[in-house]
Parts: sequence; structure tokens; C-alpha cells
Amino acid sequence: MELQLALDLVNIPEGIALVKEVAPFIDIVEIGTPIVINEGLHAVKAMKEAFPHLKVLADLKIMDAGGYEVMKASEAGADIVTVLGASNDLTIKGCVDEAKKQGSKVLVDMINVKDIATRAKELDALGVDYICVHTGYDGQAAGQNPFEDLATIKSVVKNSKTAIAGGIKLETLPEAIKANPDLIIVGGGITGQDDKAGVASKIRDLITQG
Amino acid sequence: MELQLALDLVNIPEGIALVKEVAPFIDIVEIGTPIVINEGLHAVKAMKEAFPHLKVLADLKIMDAGGYEVMKASEAGADIVTVLGASNDLTIKGCVDEAKKQGSKVLVDMINVKDIATRAKELDALGVDYICVHTGYDGQAAGQNPFEDLATIKSVVKNSKTAIAGGIKLETLPEAIKANPDLIIVGGGITGQDDKAGVASKIRDLITQG
Repeated sequence: MELQLALDLVNIPEGIALVKEVAPFIDIVEIGTPIVINEGLHAVKAMKEAFPHLKVLADLKIMDAGGYEVMKASEAGADIVTVLGASNDLTIKGCVDEAKKQGSKVLVDMINVKDIATRAKELDALGVDYICVHTGYDGQAAGQNPFEDLATIKSVVKNSKTAIAGGIKLETLPEAIKANPDLIIVGGGITGQDDKAGVASKIRDLITQG
Repeated sequence: MELQLALDLVNIPEGIALVKEVAPFIDIVEIGTPIVINEGLHAVKAMKEAFPHLKVLADLKIMDAGGYEVMKASEAGADIVTVLGASNDLTIKGCVDEAKKQGSKVLVDMINVKDIATRAKELDALGVDYICVHTGYDGQAAGQNPFEDLATIKSVVKNSKTAIAGGIKLETLPEAIKANPDLIIVGGGITGQDDKAGVASKIRDLITQG
């Protein structure tokens, strides 16, 4: 089980300073969509240069031009690129084919996908690397939670790994671990805490204990 | 009927140089998703500063954190911001509420929405400014075209304006005009031509004649 730190509401120098504090405890740094929108792929490049030993995920939430966007993100240093589950199969396929060429991976964000089971089965057949249940900011505010959806996805996929994201913090981590995804994504649960390294270390310990 | 120029595969200086050639013939410049991903909202800011008399659309294709993203784009100078029709109603509402505060507008991109009629009715009720039928790059490659979908949307909306995008060029413009949207979006149909000003001028004439 890997741990991904999601950065959302910081600029590039703030993001790098934050990752410095918790780098020993994480596997993947996510350049979140708000940072991509504010700074572009420059943020991905700067993060990979600062932490070449960490994997970097570019949260592009691709909806079109899949091959082109995966190419650009991979060239900027992204190890993993996100595409929306709500996108067209042709877009997903474009992402998967290009990622194979580039040596990067594709993570599908299932945010706002209605029929999770059917779509996860299709995505698995399309060869995506990760399928991620994700309760977005707007959904979290409405009280949604992703644990049931993860169980549904795990019951139908054959090859894809699974990931979980959306408001996970130290207190809710045991429930996330119990759901047994391959990747746990934590944002504010680390970045919003005073003792970031302390919390990240505890989260890492819990994940390692499984 | 307004004309929007979509910029996709250029960097900021190339985009500004391109708009200089055709500025007299267009109403809105679109900073396309690939540019947002590569350069961030810096591209929106630079374009608005270079052409304060033109409206600038930021093609963010928002899927989450609607209010926050519309705020950031509007602060960067965007007059119109895009959100995905495939997103949650809470995200759409966040966009609409924030755009009202900021004095900007919301355009919904219907790319890959399955039940166009039902969703357009819902979006209209949520108070979005524009609903845009859009055959993406990946869909164009598969031979999709947006004209039927536009007619469907026009038949159900009461307040929202309509827009059409996806592979429209001088040759197919008459069909787009006949479909009678409020906004026509042209990308490669202008940017991919040798005589960009000449083609843009002809497109403007056809639109004016209606």
C-alpha cells in the first residue's frame, strides 16, 4: 500500500517546502488540479527536479486529447497522470497508449461517475493502471464518502490497482486501510496539520502495519 | 451570434501573435485546456492584458472545487470560465454563484455527457450562462458531430445561451450558423490556415449575415 501526498492550495515554493518536511514518509507527491490550473506543468517539473526519488502525479483530470496531455505531463516529469472516468473510452485509450510509450502510468479519477461498477469493469479492460474512488471537495461538503465505492470497484477489477482519495485523515485512516486499496491519497490530513512530519510519520506507520 | 477563437497548441507569445492577426474579427479568445495545463492561468492574464477589449474564456473544464477555480480564473482576467457538464450539480452551483460575485460567466462543456436533453434542462435550471455542445479531439477522430446535439439543447433550455465547438471550419460554418447557436467556437479552422486574417474575416462576414 503506497501513500500519496496531495498538494492543492499552495504555489510551487510552498509545495516544495511542504514536501521537504514529509518526504521520508511518502511515496508519491500529487500536483493537484488547482496547482496545475494556477501554474501549469511547470509545477510538475519543479517538483520532480526537487525530489527525483519521489514519484510525481500530475492531477490533470484529462477529459479530451488524452494522448497529447499524457505526453506533455510525462515530458514534464510526471510518473502518473490522471484522466476522468467520465471521459470517452477513446480518451482513456489515448492516455493508456501514450503512457506506455512514455513509461508513465494512468490513474482514472472516478469523481462523479454514476455507475461505478460498470465503468470500473470497462476501465480495467482498457488497461488503466489505477482506478481511484474520489469524493471531491464539493462532494465532501455534501457528506459523501468513498469507502463503499472502493469495495464495489475491488469486486469487479482484474488487473487495475485501486486508490482512494477525498478527505482522508489520521482519524479516518483505519477505515481506509481496512478497505485495502493499493494507494491511499491524503491531502489536508497532512498539509492542514501543524506537525506535518509527525502526522505523516504516524500515517506511514499505520499503512506499513496494514 | 458571437465568434470565439480557440487557441490550443501554442505557447503564450505564439498565442498573442496569433490573436493580433485576427483580433478585429473575433469577440472572445479562448485559452484552451492544453494551454492551461502547460502554462496555467498565467496565459489568461497575459492574453487579457494584451487584448483588454476582447473577452477571454478560460477553458478549465472544471470537475471539482467549482467556486475556487472560478474565483482564480476570474482574478486572472477571465470573462468566461468552463465547467464540465459531467460534473456534480454542487460543482456547477459553486461555479455559478462565484461567477455572479466576480462578474464573470459560466460556460458548460457537454463533452461526453450521455443524456444531453436531461442534463441541459438541469443546467439551465442551475442558472449557467452558456451550454456548449462539444465534439472533442478524440471524438472528432471517431467521426462525431455536434449539430444534432445543439438542436436537442435548444429545444429544452429556457434561459441559457448555447454554443457549439469541435472541428468547425469555413466549409462547415454554414451548417453551424443554420443551427443558430449564440456562440460559435472555431479553433484549427482559423489557427491552422495560412491566411488566418482572411479566413477569420470571411467567417465573421458569414456570421454577421446569419
